[in-house]
Amino acid sequence: MLDPNTPTIRTDLAVEARQLSRERAGELTELPGIRASDTTAEGFPVSVVEVLDGRGEKAIGKPVGRYVTLELDALMRREDSAFSRGVRALAALIRDFLPEGFSGDCLVVGLGNREITPDAVGPLTAEHVLATRHLKVQLPRDFAAFRSVSAVCTGVLGTTGIESGDFVRALAQELEPGLVFAVDALASRSMDRLCRTVQLSDTGIVPGSGVGNARLALNRESLGVPVIAIGVPTVVDAATLTLDLAGRAGISLKPESFGPLGGMIVTPRDIDRSVRDVGKLIGYGLNMAFHDGLTVEEMDMLLS
Amino acid sequence: MLDPNTPTIRTDLAVEARQLSRERAGELTELPGIRASDTTAEGFPVSVVEVLDGRGEKAIGKPVGRYVTLELDALMRREDSAFSRGVRALAALIRDFLPEGFSGDCLVVGLGNREITPDAVGPLTAEHVLATRHLKVQLPRDFAAFRSVSAVCTGVLGTTGIESGDFVRALAQELEPGLVFAVDALASRSMDRLCRTVQLSDTGIVPGSGVGNARLALNRESLGVPVIAIGVPTVVDAATLTLDLAGRAGISLKPESFGPLGGMIVTPRDIDRSVRDVGKLIGYGLNMAFHDGLTVEEMDMLLS
Amino acid sequence: MLDPNTPTIRTDLAVEARQLSRERAGELTELPGIRASDTTAEGFPVSVVEVLDGRGEKAIGKPVGRYVTLELDALMRREDSAFSRGVRALAALIRDFLPEGFSGDCLVVGLGNREITPDAVGPLTAEHVLATRHLKVQLPRDFAAFRSVSAVCTGVLGTTGIESGDFVRALAQELEPGLVFAVDALASRSMDRLCRTVQLSDTGIVPGSGVGNARLALNRESLGVPVIAIGVPTVVDAATLTLDLAGRAGISLKPESFGPLGGMIVTPRDIDRSVRDVGKLIGYGLNMAFHDGLTVEEMDMLLS
Amino acid sequence: MLDPNTPTIRTDLAVEARQLSRERAGELTELPGIRASDTTAEGFPVSVVEVLDGRGEKAIGKPVGRYVTLELDALMRREDSAFSRGVRALAALIRDFLPEGFSGDCLVVGLGNREITPDAVGPLTAEHVLATRHLKVQLPRDFAAFRSVSAVCTGVLGTTGIESGDFVRALAQELEPGLVFAVDALASRSMDRLCRTVQLSDTGIVPGSGVGNARLALNRESLGVPVIAIGVPTVVDAATLTLDLAGRAGISLKPESFGPLGGMIVTPRDIDRSVRDVGKLIGYGLNMAFHDGLTVEEMDMLLS
Repeated sequence: MLDPNTPTIRTDLAVEARQLSRERAGELTELPGIRASDTTAEGFPVSVVEVLDGRGEKAIGKPVGRYVTLELDALMRREDSAFSRGVRALAALIRDFLPEGFSGDCLVVGLGNREITPDAVGPLTAEHVLATRHLKVQLPRDFAAFRSVSAVCTGVLGTTGIESGDFVRALAQELEPGLVFAVDALASRSMDRLCRTVQLSDTGIVPGSGVGNARLALNRESLGVPVIAIGVPTVVDAATLTLDLAGRAGISLKPESFGPLGGMIVTPRDIDRSVRDVGKLIGYGLNMAFHDGLTVEEMDMLLS
Repeated sequence: MLDPNTPTIRTDLAVEARQLSRERAGELTELPGIRASDTTAEGFPVSVVEVLDGRGEKAIGKPVGRYVTLELDALMRREDSAFSRGVRALAALIRDFLPEGFSGDCLVVGLGNREITPDAVGPLTAEHVLATRHLKVQLPRDFAAFRSVSAVCTGVLGTTGIESGDFVRALAQELEPGLVFAVDALASRSMDRLCRTVQLSDTGIVPGSGVGNARLALNRESLGVPVIAIGVPTVVDAATLTLDLAGRAGISLKPESFGPLGGMIVTPRDIDRSVRDVGKLIGYGLNMAFHDGLTVEEMDMLLS
Repeated sequence: MLDPNTPTIRTDLAVEARQLSRERAGELTELPGIRASDTTAEGFPVSVVEVLDGRGEKAIGKPVGRYVTLELDALMRREDSAFSRGVRALAALIRDFLPEGFSGDCLVVGLGNREITPDAVGPLTAEHVLATRHLKVQLPRDFAAFRSVSAVCTGVLGTTGIESGDFVRALAQELEPGLVFAVDALASRSMDRLCRTVQLSDTGIVPGSGVGNARLALNRESLGVPVIAIGVPTVVDAATLTLDLAGRAGISLKPESFGPLGGMIVTPRDIDRSVRDVGKLIGYGLNMAFHDGLTVEEMDMLLS
Repeated sequence: MLDPNTPTIRTDLAVEARQLSRERAGELTELPGIRASDTTAEGFPVSVVEVLDGRGEKAIGKPVGRYVTLELDALMRREDSAFSRGVRALAALIRDFLPEGFSGDCLVVGLGNREITPDAVGPLTAEHVLATRHLKVQLPRDFAAFRSVSAVCTGVLGTTGIESGDFVRALAQELEPGLVFAVDALASRSMDRLCRTVQLSDTGIVPGSGVGNARLALNRESLGVPVIAIGVPTVVDAATLTLDLAGRAGISLKPESFGPLGGMIVTPRDIDRSVRDVGKLIGYGLNMAFHDGLTVEEMDMLLS
């Protein structure tokens, strides 16, 4: 049980929350209500954490559901094939989240603020999603082989005056998609994961959690359809970093120490480029999962 | 009656459509079902064209309603005060369109494609609109003096897969605004008007008309609330320019002559800057009309 | 001989200037001091116009030199292979301009204003040029196979206070390149050519000619090394369009008719995207001409 | 004396380097070869650190010269007047660096990478500098009252292939300015200073120091004219933050602890906006220092 007066280590990743709880419990055995396993996709490590029940929720502070984490290479951009491999790996994991024989419409929602680099993952992803809904309406025969996909950005409350939740619910009622994909930036505990870990979950997400202030939920309860959350950590709280390293050094810091850390984030120096890259990767991964046989080259051509 | 084989002179401005019809009719008397008058606002010329009935609709090809055109200076940016004067003039005209004692929510919709300069008026306007809806919800007392305003961009069909009409109807059903403002780029006949004429009308508009392909209507019929259209001509059809000048030279061109003109537009050389300026002007004009006593300086501070 | 009071048809393309002079002369025979021929590259039409002497200069108003024009497809972006074919075609033509056995440094200069879409060809090209000069200095062995290339943008006089000519001469004196490539936007007579014709010449160019006001020359005389000019027409003068079409209609317009046309340009509606595409094409064409065996895929990876 | 195996606390600010050395020396008395004093400008705190000789250089690791640090408010943007006050304060400090009766040309150089937010201070500043050199050449009478100013960005080595030092030396030889202002992003020890402390010095700077890799110097030795450096800290090394906080907690971390911190930076969450603001502030401060009587309003008009 944490002292409410000290800042806590912040992470939006289930795989880190589990690790953290185990460290605290000092146990090597699995936590109650949690099931975890590791696998790979296209050679990239994949971790699966399942929160089975209330005990699991209590243990790691995440709602019941399945959390899948893909770990991409640091040097993805260096070797071209790695990008295609990453897209294929992500597409395979996304397909696992599609209901058996699902053939409904898909709505992809890019959350976050395009103007704030670490928060732009959602909007940058939406830019790389191939919208087909209108084409299937206009030319049903030609596009029979394609899934119906629409893609929007909610913008941010400060500039629209509209909660992301209200925004998406309005569109979901109008478009009646069978599935919603909500893409957002996250915060992680570990800097190693920034811009190269992708978390998928069937629990939906809370918009803005990636930048520190929670809003209306985006999930099956609020939208009436399954919501697949896709998130990428782009920042580490400066307070989390400090607390974490202090913890490892076996010392406890006073709350006062964290004053100056408020509103400060830790990011990779090349965050601008990294966020662009991962936004493209997720967009392409969604396209490949939605449309059988679509290649990266074809997407380059259609979306450039 | 026009020969269907020859291209027609294209304009989205009622004031030009009226002039054109009178030229064709060769009349100096007013057209049937049309009432027109001139005035000024803050020293800028203002033209009012009212389409009174079906005869008027037939005469100028615009739906029944009131069309108000504000003519701004060419050199607005040169003298600072001219910008403020333009904002005040536009704000006054916008207020005239607010129903008597109206106190409902306002939804501002920026139509068009941010990535295509002459089509970016709507998105650039939305960027300069002060969103207050969430503030009035969160801090009702502090913002009691402000009108509730939200501002969104619909994006374009090709990238979202969603018709602007569907998009706005969805939001209107969720937000239940009392009034919708739809801002879009237009095409005019005259190059003199590009980026410095603003047309307001109570008829709503057809998204995309500014760039040549009509879609679902945005008006009281489709949204259930009054829709004030605000448009700015940013292009002249190359075909219109040619037909127009040929006409003045007293010669008629063969349809073949227009082949190469397809998809070509005439714009000012400094269109990028002009569109940014007029987007800011309209956004500020809306803010000033919505919120009594708000100054340009305050908007500069709040929106920069 | 043209009446100085009437505007002239404006073109920066030698191939159009030659055609125009022949139309005026009403001759089918070749002009004095001009040699012209047609060929193809990768299936794209290529026109070569050589100005042999003073008579030729007088005949078409272009300095003595070789002008090569590549005509790319309208639909380049639609079929992916067309882009690679265009790059290979351009690279082959650029190589023809390299002096026999040339092994010196290359300096690529992007002229024009990034903030004005039709004037942004130069800056957009520079963005896609692979800079290697520093790598050859730092890691001479690893980059032995690469040519030494640097790439700069001059910015525009209004924002830098520095003439492009002064800017480039300063760099040429410091870097001592063996060859300078100056990339700029041009104006053409024909709308068909906009954003898909590339002119190369060994005469250098006059910065700003693409947007209407000439400045210091960029050529062997001013820089002391050969200057290869690469230009793309992105605009047609509205006055040129009008004069041209009027001429075809066999009527002559009065100078007054051109008042409203001042500062107006004709561009494709999708100029933003077209200019981005052609800037990438030229940058890639230069890279392929400079570095043997470099592929489009490799450039995508290195420059993304 | 620091153990070479442990990372050191990194700062580009003389005022912090002095503080750090005094902490280490555990002295309250001044360091040898250093003179320091505090004052204010327009109500903002100003610190002056002078490195008098070799002993001072050794003591704080900065070359002999004068370092002036302006501390701006955190909430500058909130109150409009604060921006104007900040501009006036900076202008006054800049004027102090102009040689007595100086009337020569000024060259402002924006260093750093526009594409990497925390490194974009230089380019963003250059955008807000009023270039007058060409106007004084073209219209000497009209602009007699203005100083001759040119403004350029060097771009980054990776995309130009040209060292910033070579770039600026080339321009300095061509333009023969009497004074060069080099604007760059810095790293500080304290997060409180990010994006709101401005350091001026007469020592010149080393391009790239703001992002971790030193290059050719930009100073009187390399350029032959005085170089005023203007820098703003936009990042704190993640390693520095950790080392610093650990130090305060009285514990020493092992070098291993810093592996994951490589290439990580700490920035404010709203770095994108903060960097834009401070770039505008410096550009305006330079304009006000250069041109007597120029107001913020006039700059808004001339530079928008």
